[in-house]
Amino acid sequence: MRTELSTRLGLDHAIFGFTPFPAVAAAISRAGGLGVLGAVRYGAADELACDLDWLDAHTDGRPYGLDVVMPAKKVDGVSVTDIEAMIPEGHRAFVQETLAKHGVPELAPDDRADWRITGWMEQVARSQLDVAFDYPIKLLANALGSPPADVIRRAHDHGILVAALAGSARHAKHHQDAGIDIVVAQGYEAGGHTGEITTMVLTPEIVAAVDPLPVLAAGGIGSGEQVAAGLALGAQGVWLGSVWLTTTEAELHSSALTRKLLTAGSGDTVRSRALTGKPARQLRTEWTDAWDDPSGPDPLPMPLQGLLVADAVSRIQKYEVEPLLGTPVGQIVGRMTEERSVQAVVDDLTRGFERTIARINRIAGRSV
Amino acid sequence: MRTELSTRLGLDHAIFGFTPFPAVAAAISRAGGLGVLGAVRYGAADELACDLDWLDAHTDGRPYGLDVVMPAKKVDGVSVTDIEAMIPEGHRAFVQETLAKHGVPELAPDDRADWRITGWMEQVARSQLDVAFDYPIKLLANALGSPPADVIRRAHDHGILVAALAGSARHAKHHQDAGIDIVVAQGYEAGGHTGEITTMVLTPEIVAAVDPLPVLAAGGIGSGEQVAAGLALGAQGVWLGSVWLTTTEAELHSSALTRKLLTAGSGDTVRSRALTGKPARQLRTEWTDAWDDPSGPDPLPMPLQGLLVADAVSRIQKYEVEPLLGTPVGQIVGRMTEERSVQAVVDDLTRGFERTIARINRIAGRSV
Repeated sequence: MRTELSTRLGLDHAIFGFTPFPAVAAAISRAGGLGVLGAVRYGAADELACDLDWLDAHTDGRPYGLDVVMPAKKVDGVSVTDIEAMIPEGHRAFVQETLAKHGVPELAPDDRADWRITGWMEQVARSQLDVAFDYPIKLLANALGSPPADVIRRAHDHGILVAALAGSARHAKHHQDAGIDIVVAQGYEAGGHTGEITTMVLTPEIVAAVDPLPVLAAGGIGSGEQVAAGLALGAQGVWLGSVWLTTTEAELHSSALTRKLLTAGSGDTVRSRALTGKPARQLRTEWTDAWDDPSGPDPLPMPLQGLLVADAVSRIQKYEVEPLLGTPVGQIVGRMTEERSVQAVVDDLTRGFERTIARINRIAGRSV
Repeated sequence: MRTELSTRLGLDHAIFGFTPFPAVAAAISRAGGLGVLGAVRYGAADELACDLDWLDAHTDGRPYGLDVVMPAKKVDGVSVTDIEAMIPEGHRAFVQETLAKHGVPELAPDDRADWRITGWMEQVARSQLDVAFDYPIKLLANALGSPPADVIRRAHDHGILVAALAGSARHAKHHQDAGIDIVVAQGYEAGGHTGEITTMVLTPEIVAAVDPLPVLAAGGIGSGEQVAAGLALGAQGVWLGSVWLTTTEAELHSSALTRKLLTAGSGDTVRSRALTGKPARQLRTEWTDAWDDPSGPDPLPMPLQGLLVADAVSRIQKYEVEPLLGTPVGQIVGRMTEERSVQAVVDDLTRGFERTIARINRIAGRSV
């Protein structure tokens, strides 16, 4: 399964795997895809450096990438404290009431909040990049908007391809004008931030809009048939995030969350502003229901909502409070029914792809 | 492009085209697909018979099908008048206010209301079937729920395959238990009634759930790449509805509506209960906005909403009141940018499919 882009990156398979876990990213790269480590969880640049050291030592020399979240709009001289001060008291009270209703304990004073969104602050993302450019990363992805021009320039100076996620053709063209190299067409069914247009419609629309830039299809892909479908839509590769969450290498640190993911159906996700302030697909929980209830407060705009709920989400995760426990994940969660190794997932994708090619050639009346 | 199902039906291409227009259905069948005429617009069985006569005379002996809307739940002894009486006065007033705000004229006393949903009443659908079984139709599709057991039996006695639309695997299994022959997996992006799960995720889920029943992929399909993607997902054919609306054979009788369809982007549809009471994807208009506005009344449940708005929709269409003028259509509307003949659309689909097969074989490293 090779395209111009996957060949250029030195991959065996045109499979791009986004994950917040270094062990998963390394295993994806070792299996012949491109493991892309999500940096948003890292608050301090030295933690990221530590994990990139580990990743670099465990990919057997295979290529890997990094995903940062640079905000679309730059706000100069605004600190986390400034932003915290913009959060209304009523919203803080609603968070505490919702937690109290479910008896969620406080974190101990020396517990670190595991779920953080400080990586979304441009200054944090920039400090991460200062670290990242010391590593031989092959791809730098930006999950929100186009990266700033100087970041694209620095990446190109290091021979790094720059990718950006887009939920519409207009958004994709904006990335192209900014000088990025690859567009990830993120369909409605994807986990995390998505627009309204589905992968089936969005992928060819973006391929046509940004031609000749390569496009990756993202959203709803978790099997070889879906890989083939994504490539049939004109993509030069597929971008998968959700399917790695239930791999044996994933460090969710919550058997309750793993169990929820393994038993959830494709209809058990919701596109909600509860987590970040922008619509992001995630498991539907009593937490998302509380925020989607019209009688409660509206989620705040990004980045306020993320700051508002960071401590609460960490507490829910640490104490595995089942009714509230969730995670960003796509509709493909319905297909994630057993824990498997990353290698087993990649094998399943590539074998399923081969079977699909054989079947579709029979439909087309071609013998191969 | 042949599958077991398309061969069984005697088609050149595994393309199923749903349309309310006999001229479009005939042209799809003549082009080698299966034209499926939607019967919901027909109030009287003799009008349907008249159009089936015409269709049968214009398919050059090629197979064609019929799509009826049998309601999932049977309500014995309830007439249209009984149902009309259940509509609250406040809702009627809201309709009149919205029409008045846009200066929509009344229909003349002898004008027939073009937009009707009386086909949804089981007694009407049954009278349509009494007519339909006199014609050599090859496929009978039901757009809402499983058809009643006696209808399936009658169809099978006539050698007619029965198809039913499904938006979830559970829904599809229910159809299978009822004894139908084909499931149409209708993704979120499709025009008309849809669920939340997209074609990319839904199609393989339903294929697995109802195996060995054949499945058609519906939603987001309007190009050869998308045909290939739908077939890659395990479908034995693709079911297209939206793309025919802007063919030269379509009898929309509204150049304003055609213009709206040709200029709309993939983001210009909305899944709204405004038209039928169930979520149905359609062009977003000031009419759907009015019903989706939380300060207005909630749409009524099916079939009340359809009865409530039938006259209003007919008036909007007759007088081409642009801000309110809409139609059920899928996200693929963004690709419908020029009026073409049905034959040109089918040629584009089949040629695009061939190009896609060639490209994906190169990706798979196969020479064909």
